[in-house]
Amino acid sequence: MENYVPFLVSHWRTVGLISVSIAAGVALGQLNQTHERAANKSQRVHTNSSIKAKQVKRESAIEQINEIEDDDEQSLEDQDVLPILFQYEKPSEADSIRRSEEFYRRMNQRRSVREISSDPVALEVIENIIKTGGTSPSGAHTEPWTFVVVSNLEMKQQIRQIIEAEEEINYKQRMGDVWVQDLQPVGTTWVKEYLTEAPWLILIFKQVHGFKRNGQKKIHYYNEISVSIATGFLLAAIQEAGLVTVTTTPLNCGPSIRVLLGRPVNEKLLLLLPVGYPKVGATVPDFKRKPLHDIMVHYQ
Amino acid sequence: MENYVPFLVSHWRTVGLISVSIAAGVALGQLNQTHERAANKSQRVHTNSSIKAKQVKRESAIEQINEIEDDDEQSLEDQDVLPILFQYEKPSEADSIRRSEEFYRRMNQRRSVREISSDPVALEVIENIIKTGGTSPSGAHTEPWTFVVVSNLEMKQQIRQIIEAEEEINYKQRMGDVWVQDLQPVGTTWVKEYLTEAPWLILIFKQVHGFKRNGQKKIHYYNEISVSIATGFLLAAIQEAGLVTVTTTPLNCGPSIRVLLGRPVNEKLLLLLPVGYPKVGATVPDFKRKPLHDIMVHYQ
Repeated sequence: MENYVPFLVSHWRTVGLISVSIAAGVALGQLNQTHERAANKSQRVHTNSSIKAKQVKRESAIEQINEIEDDDEQSLEDQDVLPILFQYEKPSEADSIRRSEEFYRRMNQRRSVREISSDPVALEVIENIIKTGGTSPSGAHTEPWTFVVVSNLEMKQQIRQIIEAEEEINYKQRMGDVWVQDLQPVGTTWVKEYLTEAPWLILIFKQVHGFKRNGQKKIHYYNEISVSIATGFLLAAIQEAGLVTVTTTPLNCGPSIRVLLGRPVNEKLLLLLPVGYPKVGATVPDFKRKPLHDIMVHYQ
Repeated sequence: MENYVPFLVSHWRTVGLISVSIAAGVALGQLNQTHERAANKSQRVHTNSSIKAKQVKRESAIEQINEIEDDDEQSLEDQDVLPILFQYEKPSEADSIRRSEEFYRRMNQRRSVREISSDPVALEVIENIIKTGGTSPSGAHTEPWTFVVVSNLEMKQQIRQIIEAEEEINYKQRMGDVWVQDLQPVGTTWVKEYLTEAPWLILIFKQVHGFKRNGQKKIHYYNEISVSIATGFLLAAIQEAGLVTVTTTPLNCGPSIRVLLGRPVNEKLLLLLPVGYPKVGATVPDFKRKPLHDIMVHYQ
């Protein structure tokens, strides 16, 4: 993602350094070189100076370095951030329409499902799902996410215990005795069976900051937005794999679960997804989605 | 999404009402009825009391209503939120692995591209992309998003003007005269050509609150997380359609752009995506993504 303003605030020295370097490169007279993409297709030409010059002409230096992973000044030497050709095959318009329509249909079948079967799901599928989450864009290419996947039953039980204890307190405090008694026939409503029944729990942590090489904190701008966008990719991947989940936000339990899982203090629990196949006969509430004209406004 | 705590705080009356209704239903003795999914497959049986009873047994009432669209008490009568069978075909394990692998490969080809061609893109593709964004889960099923799509050149020019003016101020204030002069050969670095060259701009607004029927504000919990997750689905859809974009966060320009587009005050600009085909020969920085072992931790 591009961070229009905060990036400049904190990175002005780096921006300056890179800017001067680029300006020097441009001054070498590479400005008018052109480049034929076809000749270099499927070739990763890191050292092609004509591409670099073109890149400099077309893009601003600020945009260009907005995806640098590390704002250490040293990182410029160590990291290979030269421009490369974007690998791409342009589809026909008919293909674009068909593919976008098919993807919409597949995603539109997704529902939040709480009745998750304990049938096993292969680790390979979970790994593909996490890898897909990791393809998301992020502010300044910080990739500020940690996906903790839990298949260990004892660990799942401890997570369930933490969440249900919190839920029970809230439930009893907020609802009052009358409601609690009335609900006795229904069962304990703070029970979250899916937390132990689902073969996998995916706990999504946002890294609120990283670390520079000198040990100082490195701020991760927009880390919550970045990790939430990555969760969108991850949920799409769960749907593509034919699995189900329910997106939950156990925020008050975050610190306890973080300690339980041994995650560092710069990581905060954002979302928890129980993942598996649905139980046979699973039901969902009969909610409708807003129609297109309620969510889209077109200035034509 | 499930909102474990805040939901209860604000919805206790609704929760109570529904809880009592459900408890009454359970008391009618439907608890032990069972239901064969196969018999009812592909049938939307809203009035099947056995499904309702099963739903009550398996799920907590609180979870069940966490996706209700409107927290008006009246909404219970007007809205059809009875449980229905989840429509689902279980894939083989081999299919799950193959599909998750293929989706990962397609998403892993996505890159943020700033060199966007002015070639037209069919409205139908954009509509499918927006519809896909609208399939995302959201806190209490509030669907707190508005996608403004702009193809009008004059409007794109005005948006570009607002963003570039802000960028120029930041640029000149932060960088100092030396850097600005050094960058003259490169061109004005606050220029965002893609804002007018791309055939479409998608401006993603979060609705920070909605309105109840009596005109009072209805808080949208987790609206930023919900809209960011929806953006993940939307970016995946852009990739599936064979289009490109760059995810930008023009936060300081939000109020001006909101007024320009005539959006109400409860909507805040979260992200702006220029969408189109890449220019021929477009380049991207040679960044790598973190490997799986850096983003995933497995408790087995």
